Amino acid sequence: MTDFITWCDYLGTFAFAISGIRLASAKQFDWFGAYVVGIVTAVGGGTIRDVLLNATPFWMEQPSYFIITGLALIFVIIFRKHLIHLNNTFFIFDAIGLGLFVIVGVVKTLDYGFPMWVAIVMGTITGSFGGMMRDILINEEPLIFRKDVYALACVAGGLIYCGCLTLGLPLSLSQFVSALSILVIRVVSVKYHIGVPVLKGEE
Amino acid sequence: MTDFITWCDYLGTFAFAISGIRLASAKQFDWFGAYVVGIVTAVGGGTIRDVLLNATPFWMEQPSYFIITGLALIFVIIFRKHLIHLNNTFFIFDAIGLGLFVIVGVVKTLDYGFPMWVAIVMGTITGSFGGMMRDILINEEPLIFRKDVYALACVAGGLIYCGCLTLGLPLSLSQFVSALSILVIRVVSVKYHIGVPVLKGEE
Amino acid sequence: MTDFITWCDYLGTFAFAISGIRLASAKQFDWFGAYVVGIVTAVGGGTIRDVLLNATPFWMEQPSYFIITGLALIFVIIFRKHLIHLNNTFFIFDAIGLGLFVIVGVVKTLDYGFPMWVAIVMGTITGSFGGMMRDILINEEPLIFRKDVYALACVAGGLIYCGCLTLGLPLSLSQFVSALSILVIRVVSVKYHIGVPVLKGEE
Repeated sequence: MTDFITWCDYLGTFAFAISGIRLASAKQFDWFGAYVVGIVTAVGGGTIRDVLLNATPFWMEQPSYFIITGLALIFVIIFRKHLIHLNNTFFIFDAIGLGLFVIVGVVKTLDYGFPMWVAIVMGTITGSFGGMMRDILINEEPLIFRKDVYALACVAGGLIYCGCLTLGLPLSLSQFVSALSILVIRVVSVKYHIGVPVLKGEE
Repeated sequence: MTDFITWCDYLGTFAFAISGIRLASAKQFDWFGAYVVGIVTAVGGGTIRDVLLNATPFWMEQPSYFIITGLALIFVIIFRKHLIHLNNTFFIFDAIGLGLFVIVGVVKTLDYGFPMWVAIVMGTITGSFGGMMRDILINEEPLIFRKDVYALACVAGGLIYCGCLTLGLPLSLSQFVSALSILVIRVVSVKYHIGVPVLKGEE
Repeated sequence: MTDFITWCDYLGTFAFAISGIRLASAKQFDWFGAYVVGIVTAVGGGTIRDVLLNATPFWMEQPSYFIITGLALIFVIIFRKHLIHLNNTFFIFDAIGLGLFVIVGVVKTLDYGFPMWVAIVMGTITGSFGGMMRDILINEEPLIFRKDVYALACVAGGLIYCGCLTLGLPLSLSQFVSALSILVIRVVSVKYHIGVPVLKGEE
C-alpha cells in the first residue's frame, strides 16, 4: 500500500515537473531555468501549505523530488519531438498526482489540528498553487483559473473526503475514494469540455 | 468598540475582495479563479506578515474571510452592470479597510516583540502586499507602485502611530487616529491627484 | 575579518537594490514602488530561505538593508544619467554580493542541521530568488533563467564549499574559496558569453 502511494507520488511529481519544463521551454528558458520551473510546479503547492502550517517543507526531508525533476528535464531534452504524442499519458499522471497531493494536503492539515474547512483550503492550495506559481514564473495568467475544472476538483475532493469521514468510512478507504474522485472529475471535465463559467466583465 | 472594529474589518475585506474579483473578471478568469484572486487580495498582505512573524495566518482561525469573499463574488456576478456606479463607495470601504489592516499589522508586530521600524514595515506589507499579489496573479505590473499614494499612506500611518505612542496617547486613541490618518491621506491623495513622483528612467 | 564580510554584504545589497530600482524605473514605477522592488531584490532570496528554515527573516534584526536600499534609491535619482557608465562596477559588486549571499545561505542551512544537498538548494535560493522576485514584480520573465550562468553559479559555489569541507579545509578558508569561485564563474561567464543552453521547444 505504501509502495502504491509512493509510486503515485513519483508519477504525479514527474507529470507536474514535465508541465513546468515544457511551458518554460516554450519561453526560451535555459536548462537550469526550466528545471527551476519544473521543481516549483512539482513542490510549490505543498511548500506553501507547509509554510502556512508552520511545518518543515516536505521536500527538505529527502531529495527524491529533485531527482525526479532532473529525470523529467532529461526526458524533455531527449524526447522533445515526441512529447506531444504523450499528452494523454501526462494528463493521466497529472490527474493521479493531483488526487494524491490534494488528499495528502487535507490529511496533513487535519493532523496539525486544524478544522475541516482549513484542510480543504490547504488541499486545494497543495494541488493548485504549484501550477499557479509555474504560470507566474513564465509570466502568463494562471491557466488553472481559466480552463477546465482544476482547482474546483481539489475542493470537491476535499468535500468528498469530509463526507466519507462523516459517513464513518475507514481512513484509508476515504482517502482512496476522494483521491479517485478528483481523478474522475478531471477526466470527465476535460473529456466533455466542462469548465467553470467565465466571470463576465463589466460593460 | 470591538463590534465597530469587526465591521470595519468586514467592510475592508469586502472591498479588497471586490477589487480582486473585478480585475480578474476583466482578464476572463472563471468564477473560481476570480474567487481565488479576491481572497488573495483580501488576506494576502496579512498572510505574508504572519508568515514573516512566524504566526499562524489569521484567516486559519475562523472562516469569515472566505465567506465575505464568497459574498463579494456573488455581488459582482449579480450587480456587474452597476458596479461602476459604486466606485466611490468601494473606494471608501477600501480606505477604511486599509487604515484598519495597517494598524492591526503594526500592533501585532509590536506584540511579537519587534521594534517600531519592523512594525511599520509589517503594517505596510499588511496593507499593500495583497494588492501586489492580486496584480501578479492577473499578470499586470503592480498598480499600487504606480498610482496615487497607497503604500506610502501605510508607512505614514505607521509613523503617526509611532508619534502618538511617543506623545503618550492611550493605545486605542493612537490606533484610531493613525487608522483615520491613512483614510484621510488616501481620500486627499485621490481627490487632488497627488502621487509619488515617477522614477525617471535612464536616457 | 568580520568587517570585511560586513562590507561585502553592504556592497552586494547595494548592487542588488540598484538592479531592482533601475529595472523598476524602466517600467515607470514611482519612487516608493522602485524602493520596494529594490528591497525585494536585495533581501527576497534570504527571506524565502529563512521562511523555509523557519528562522526569523534576517532583515528583521537590524535596519541596515532598508537604509542601504534607501541610499541606492537616492543614488539612482541623482546619478541616473551616469549609471550606464558604472555598469561594470555594479556587475562586480553584484558578483561579490552573490558569492557572499550564497555561502551565507549554505552555512546557515547547515547550522540548522539540514544535510548538504538542502544547504546547496538554500544557497541557490538565497542568491537567485531575489532577482526572480524582482522580475515577477516588474512583470518580466525571470532574466536569471535565460541569461549567462547565474543560478548555476550558486549551485557550483555550494558544491565547491562541499568539496572544500570534504577535503578537510578550515571553515573560513572553505567559505572564502567557494564565494570567490562564484565571483570568478560570474566574471568568466559574462566576459566569454558562456550561458546555459536554451531548452529547445517542441516543433
